[in-house]
Amino acid sequence: MLHIETKHTNITEGFWHKRQKINKQVTIKAVQDRFLETGRYDALDFDNEKIPHIFYDSDVAKWIEGVSFTLYKERNAELEKFIDNLVDLIEKNRSDDGYFNSHFLRKPEERWKNRSDHELYCAGHLMEAAVEYYKATGKDKFLKLMQDYADYIYKVFVIEDSAAFKTPGHEEIELALVKLYDVTKNEKYLELSKYFIDTRGTIEEPYILEKYNHYNIQDHLPVRRQKTAEGHSVRAGYLYSGMADIARKYNDTELFEACKTIFSNIVNKRMYITGGTGSSHLGEAFTLDYDLPNSKGYAETCAAIALAFFAQRMLLLEQDSVYSDTVERIIYNGMLSGISLDGKAFFYENPLEIQPVLNNRNVSTTFTERNPITQRKEVFSCSCCPPNVMRFIGALNEYIYSYEQDTLFINQYMSSDMKYENIQAVMKTDFPSSGNVSIKIENITRIAIRKPYWCMDIDIKVNGKIAEYTLEKGYIYIGLTEKNNAIDVKMDMPVRLVRSNPKVHEDSKKTAVMRGPVVYCAEGIDNDFPLNQILFDEKCEYRLEKSKDLDADILILKVKIPKESDELYTYKPFEYINKELTLVPFYCFANRGETEMRVWL
Amino acid sequence: MLHIETKHTNITEGFWHKRQKINKQVTIKAVQDRFLETGRYDALDFDNEKIPHIFYDSDVAKWIEGVSFTLYKERNAELEKFIDNLVDLIEKNRSDDGYFNSHFLRKPEERWKNRSDHELYCAGHLMEAAVEYYKATGKDKFLKLMQDYADYIYKVFVIEDSAAFKTPGHEEIELALVKLYDVTKNEKYLELSKYFIDTRGTIEEPYILEKYNHYNIQDHLPVRRQKTAEGHSVRAGYLYSGMADIARKYNDTELFEACKTIFSNIVNKRMYITGGTGSSHLGEAFTLDYDLPNSKGYAETCAAIALAFFAQRMLLLEQDSVYSDTVERIIYNGMLSGISLDGKAFFYENPLEIQPVLNNRNVSTTFTERNPITQRKEVFSCSCCPPNVMRFIGALNEYIYSYEQDTLFINQYMSSDMKYENIQAVMKTDFPSSGNVSIKIENITRIAIRKPYWCMDIDIKVNGKIAEYTLEKGYIYIGLTEKNNAIDVKMDMPVRLVRSNPKVHEDSKKTAVMRGPVVYCAEGIDNDFPLNQILFDEKCEYRLEKSKDLDADILILKVKIPKESDELYTYKPFEYINKELTLVPFYCFANRGETEMRVWL
Repeated sequence: MLHIETKHTNITEGFWHKRQKINKQVTIKAVQDRFLETGRYDALDFDNEKIPHIFYDSDVAKWIEGVSFTLYKERNAELEKFIDNLVDLIEKNRSDDGYFNSHFLRKPEERWKNRSDHELYCAGHLMEAAVEYYKATGKDKFLKLMQDYADYIYKVFVIEDSAAFKTPGHEEIELALVKLYDVTKNEKYLELSKYFIDTRGTIEEPYILEKYNHYNIQDHLPVRRQKTAEGHSVRAGYLYSGMADIARKYNDTELFEACKTIFSNIVNKRMYITGGTGSSHLGEAFTLDYDLPNSKGYAETCAAIALAFFAQRMLLLEQDSVYSDTVERIIYNGMLSGISLDGKAFFYENPLEIQPVLNNRNVSTTFTERNPITQRKEVFSCSCCPPNVMRFIGALNEYIYSYEQDTLFINQYMSSDMKYENIQAVMKTDFPSSGNVSIKIENITRIAIRKPYWCMDIDIKVNGKIAEYTLEKGYIYIGLTEKNNAIDVKMDMPVRLVRSNPKVHEDSKKTAVMRGPVVYCAEGIDNDFPLNQILFDEKCEYRLEKSKDLDADILILKVKIPKESDELYTYKPFEYINKELTLVPFYCFANRGETEMRVWL
Repeated sequence: MLHIETKHTNITEGFWHKRQKINKQVTIKAVQDRFLETGRYDALDFDNEKIPHIFYDSDVAKWIEGVSFTLYKERNAELEKFIDNLVDLIEKNRSDDGYFNSHFLRKPEERWKNRSDHELYCAGHLMEAAVEYYKATGKDKFLKLMQDYADYIYKVFVIEDSAAFKTPGHEEIELALVKLYDVTKNEKYLELSKYFIDTRGTIEEPYILEKYNHYNIQDHLPVRRQKTAEGHSVRAGYLYSGMADIARKYNDTELFEACKTIFSNIVNKRMYITGGTGSSHLGEAFTLDYDLPNSKGYAETCAAIALAFFAQRMLLLEQDSVYSDTVERIIYNGMLSGISLDGKAFFYENPLEIQPVLNNRNVSTTFTERNPITQRKEVFSCSCCPPNVMRFIGALNEYIYSYEQDTLFINQYMSSDMKYENIQAVMKTDFPSSGNVSIKIENITRIAIRKPYWCMDIDIKVNGKIAEYTLEKGYIYIGLTEKNNAIDVKMDMPVRLVRSNPKVHEDSKKTAVMRGPVVYCAEGIDNDFPLNQILFDEKCEYRLEKSKDLDADILILKVKIPKESDELYTYKPFEYINKELTLVPFYCFANRGETEMRVWL
């Protein structure tokens, strides 16, 4: 299957248009300012002797990539000049063999010495940036520099085998090389990517750091034999994405099966309801099946993004809605919570419960337990997430449509237009506010519309008539006989009470609330009663309201809570009183100051 | 009110007789062997130059005290010789001014320099040991040595004010001095105790260690103004016990009111259902109202014991069953869980939930989260709990009866006999197996029987006739007209489902099970299904069985659990299936190897 690239689509209005606008008008500048302040761009200027952090190149690269996605529709001389200058610095300062790394060029004796030092990770992000900048602007200098770099890496790792390690300590370059192949058609890059993937876990390589083991970097087994998602969840997500890419490029069914097994392990046993993964901050890692702690949950923004990458690549291998449903779960929840509504501040970790009072738990000592941060920050010392959110929102266009033979797939619901070869589509929807979507479509004989997992009742009309369809792997297939077709989709979107698998011990007897793809949460600021003994009614009476201060649909649910009591322990069943519970979308939490927050109620 | 001392009572059979027998026959020797191995007794021998730990004296002292309680009924030449030798070493090695501390006599320049160094704490424990050894054996050498020591401490702290601190960094000596006064009638010891109590928190003194603040050692405020239980929970319990002692000795109502306020804060907001306190391992401390985490709960064995001390002293100030109920809650649960059924191994911390699988949570790193230990140990480097349990069980006799004017109070139900002046009582019961108690009593005109908080229905006959009684503050008062009276008490003891206050966020929608005073728990070894989504029926159908391997009454409850499912998240309400849930008393947990355990289900 073919994914339809950014250049062929526009997000034209609605939920994501608003966010892409903020991304373009606010976030690019906000991240740029913070990166200027923290010397991230200066790292590329070798007049500056300060040795930059080992991953500054990747921060700059993701920012360039994020900018690139906005340049398809509207070029920007100022930003391009800024980027071109950075590219010039790379050209000027790279070594003759094509190598560029702002940290190790200043410590040349350590080049390719330490597997933990993110060298190949930075290289991968630079390649991705170069590819997208080239595709958006046609300028090929950066791309050529990165081709040289990739050629050199091929030489060092495949031909000479001269580095102190054989595969990256932080995966990323695997998927980047596939992108580089896509624009250059140089098979060496595919081969190099496949080499990294197939070599991983087949030989004893150094741990990345003393405190970590092979699981943390997914080289505990050859990747084809891995059955569970392990270790650092961002590394994992990038690796699995690369594996899916290579499976597709080489039509490698064994690798595809390994990807399926791992994907299934994630979404059935190791993923938060928000699409977040990596439930421990120790190693930023996956832990055990069903171990999904809420307040201690890590669920890094980058890990959600990496899982979306993986899911989207799996969708291109197999038209099953489990993949596009997962993308949807992530983009409306665990990814989007990573950025503030104003587009300026970011969460690195995205816990499902915040109780600010527990920050005062250790009243008698200055020791503190690790509690999640309660407010978004504008920059982090390890600031991978802000530019990652920025580039991800910029590239959301690519998640909407895909195409195979005679069929156009509608994977995500966003107001958009699309032109690919002679196919044209225009989608209008106020999704996720409602489940009403109208699609005008031209020159295609079959359409496949994802039926979301949360939707029990879907009604589809083609040119005003109820459509006949077949449902396969979550997609509704409809043959089209006209040249121009108007398709109207109505999906029911009631408020739904969600239970987690009984094996998830942290969610025992708790309930989460969703409407459509949006996970809701309760914040203390809206609710003046304890949020941990709420009784929900299965009938789930609710009102939907527009929030006064959050630019979001909020929910008011009729619930019962126990009467206040002085007793610490009681033999008497609680007496309940009626209350109205206000819920806001999870992606909105912590936009109104520090307050309690819970997803599982 | 008067408490009736060990020498006047015998525990004659049943639950606690069995445990006192194990204590005497096994635990004394087991602790002694471990202390011999770890050089605790050697510390007193100054031919040995090794500098002992700052609190080794207190370990030895508690062991001597524990032995002493067994000597009332049966002297033991071998143990006494061992102790007499230790006393001789103290006499030989103490300094001329009466000071004895095995650590600081080897580092004389540091005497009274560091508030954190447990000097007064060790002194207090030595005094308690000396008092009990004297009372049990009549041998007064140790007592006299400790009188000299107390006189010297009085001189240093009250007269000269020459130490680098004014009050103990670890309280304990306050209550010990009251005991010393009780046998010597030297008012100076009371005065010194009162001095430490009233000076505490009135002047700026050093923290005990850099990482701790004044809350940790309860000197954030003058004690009379303290309203909440704060800081290190063992220190706190000992301090509050000393405060209650002084309130009683001086008839000090202001101090008594402070004690009441703190006691109420503990039992209504900061105490586990097991009677454990101190919910954080960081500072081994109280935290916040209603902050009672289960698996991370600390609930040190010594803290439970210290709270029992406090409760018993409050009972002597005010005949209110809240105090004796609290003692009961502790002795059948949070104290008794501290020792294995065979009497050889101990828990320092007593969490209410253990999930051994979570010890494997951090598969990809060697970093680990702090998880509670899952099995009892024979000795700890900080081994305060083992001899504390030993001395506590040895002295349980003192918790049964108390006396005031014309009234004999029955505070705890244990098969026992008692003689005090011309009063005699013989109690027979298989409590806590049943609530049937018969008491034969002589030469008293009024009896007051505690009606436990868990008992809704009590039936009392005096000499075969239903008794008329008045109920006041949880005690049933019955006038007796005969010289000899046979009193039969029948308390209902059904299985009860317990809820915690909705503000205890960790116990949201969870249920604990109690029968009489005994808190039950589920262990993985008995139940082959997830323990976190159990539905209890309010009717609570159950069978009581004798355990095959635990020497305890176990419960089999009819419950429902959700059907197994592959889905991680579901919109469908669970379908439930019937199961039998096996519960064992909390005090029995972890006696059959490592397995999951939960109190709150």
